[in-house]
Amino acid sequence: MKLSFRWYGSDDPVTLNHIRQIPNMHSIVTAVYDVPPGELWSRDSIAALKQEVESAGLHFEVIESVPVHEDIKLGKPSRQQYIENYKENIRRLGEAGIRCICYNFMPVFDWTRTQLDKELPDGSNALVYYKEQLEKMDPLTGELSLPGWDSSYTKESLAAVFAEYNKITEEDLWENLRYFLSEIIPVAEEADVKMAIHPDDPPWPIFGLPRIITCEANVDRFLKLVDSPYNGLTLCTGSLGCTKANDMVHLVDKYSAMGRIHFMHVRNVKILDDGSFEESAHFSACGSLDIVAIMKVLYQNGFDGYVRPDHGRMIWGETGKPGYGLFDRALGASYINGIWETLQKLG
Amino acid sequence: MKLSFRWYGSDDPVTLNHIRQIPNMHSIVTAVYDVPPGELWSRDSIAALKQEVESAGLHFEVIESVPVHEDIKLGKPSRQQYIENYKENIRRLGEAGIRCICYNFMPVFDWTRTQLDKELPDGSNALVYYKEQLEKMDPLTGELSLPGWDSSYTKESLAAVFAEYNKITEEDLWENLRYFLSEIIPVAEEADVKMAIHPDDPPWPIFGLPRIITCEANVDRFLKLVDSPYNGLTLCTGSLGCTKANDMVHLVDKYSAMGRIHFMHVRNVKILDDGSFEESAHFSACGSLDIVAIMKVLYQNGFDGYVRPDHGRMIWGETGKPGYGLFDRALGASYINGIWETLQKLG
Repeated sequence: MKLSFRWYGSDDPVTLNHIRQIPNMHSIVTAVYDVPPGELWSRDSIAALKQEVESAGLHFEVIESVPVHEDIKLGKPSRQQYIENYKENIRRLGEAGIRCICYNFMPVFDWTRTQLDKELPDGSNALVYYKEQLEKMDPLTGELSLPGWDSSYTKESLAAVFAEYNKITEEDLWENLRYFLSEIIPVAEEADVKMAIHPDDPPWPIFGLPRIITCEANVDRFLKLVDSPYNGLTLCTGSLGCTKANDMVHLVDKYSAMGRIHFMHVRNVKILDDGSFEESAHFSACGSLDIVAIMKVLYQNGFDGYVRPDHGRMIWGETGKPGYGLFDRALGASYINGIWETLQKLG
Repeated sequence: MKLSFRWYGSDDPVTLNHIRQIPNMHSIVTAVYDVPPGELWSRDSIAALKQEVESAGLHFEVIESVPVHEDIKLGKPSRQQYIENYKENIRRLGEAGIRCICYNFMPVFDWTRTQLDKELPDGSNALVYYKEQLEKMDPLTGELSLPGWDSSYTKESLAAVFAEYNKITEEDLWENLRYFLSEIIPVAEEADVKMAIHPDDPPWPIFGLPRIITCEANVDRFLKLVDSPYNGLTLCTGSLGCTKANDMVHLVDKYSAMGRIHFMHVRNVKILDDGSFEESAHFSACGSLDIVAIMKVLYQNGFDGYVRPDHGRMIWGETGKPGYGLFDRALGASYINGIWETLQKLG
């Protein structure tokens, strides 16, 4: 296991100096943020990022994310240029020492919650997804914007892209993903960069948009689209795990035994009865997932990929990017250290 | 294991609200701080403290410390009144729900370091004890003052108490401790309050003052002075463990199997070749102690006492009481959670 931490670059209130003071911290997970989806990342930008991370004594080996242009997901004729750019980005990142790229194939929106600052009984706050709130939300008229979302959409352009998705089926989306993978995985193999798709979060269709990386059957199908170790997973426990339909210990066991998990996002969620969920502290008893059981199957399968503590609560009065404060994620990192060291020493 | 956290009362920059947001936090470890050593703690003060802690949703079960008046350590005739006060404090605390009292029997000074803000390679800072620095220190003339020390001494009164200790031997100190225990332990038994002596820190004579709770032979001797489960230990891994002469895994195993550890102070130290040491992050690889092995023997012996993460580094720019910042101690708590949960689940 290589412990890592997401960093949003020099604008992030969490600094590299903060991150490197977390015990056992190995890698920074970051991206070139000032390039629109689908465009080339300049070698200079990549080199500058690498230099900044390495100057702080940390490794620069994981990118999250290289975004996939909507035209690729939609299978539009214009996709080819964006795919060529994607390939070139993989090559450039591989040359710079990147060994793992996280991306997702969710139409339009990245992770979705209905409230970003739900106060918990201990006075901290967390991101939540309440079904009842979601049913009242309409991204085409509402004001909600999440940090994971592409903020470049205007209401008009959002309506246009929704209209385009209305014309394609879930099977079309699968075919568009297959085509994308068939193009990029050979390049990833050559560049020695493991591609690691992030599951859909939450793992069900949302706002009428299809979502496909949602469950065991679909992950199985995904891995077979291009059956290469370079076509792998970012196994996000809190994404697939926010429904009891997904048995996270089983999924982590199965896909790590297959050598197809390259990157773990470790977080916990409290699943509510009506299909809602609340993000929680990483500690197992705070949520519905057994984090120790998850780490144990990883350990038993000889996992040596990257792990990062995912979304934390906001604690101790911290403000900043929801889910991406320093404090609770660092507690998560430290908790993971305790689990992993104990697994190693108990064999 | 009941996870706990030291809190210095309403003046502490670390608040109860901060502490309760640490996952799995059970108890606050605190004291009535505005009463001189040897005096009675008023029932009102104790009740107010209890009320404050419990209002934050935390348990009020551990006191650190009820200080032992120097006259008791010196065996002066005046000790009897201070011992009577000590007994009464035990009774009052027991009535208020306190189940464990930490104290120490170190002459004059509590824990001693030579520098409180040694910068570590990652930019954090920590308390260190450098032998070379210590040899140049003279508490009777110097300015060093540590948070654990009784700040009520003037230079003159300090000189006077040093002169008194010059007149007693190490054996006298043992006899004074025996007498104290023979008086208080029956009261502790009746009040159902476990007394938990803190080892000397560091565990060797300092500034010419004797120190006796320093090693296995002496802890054995201590436990036999009054052979009651109520005469137990605060096993501080960083105190006894700052010399390789003490095998911490063995000591924790032995004394927890005997049921004589009531309170664990868990921290790590990096032992240097010349007898110096640096405090480090709790994570085993950061120091010389195997924290997992220590927690493992506790677990195997069915330990159900209190554990607190002890001294942390100062990280992320935090300022405050050296060793007692919020951030790194909370990382320690989270690390302990990971270890303990894994031990529980792996059996």
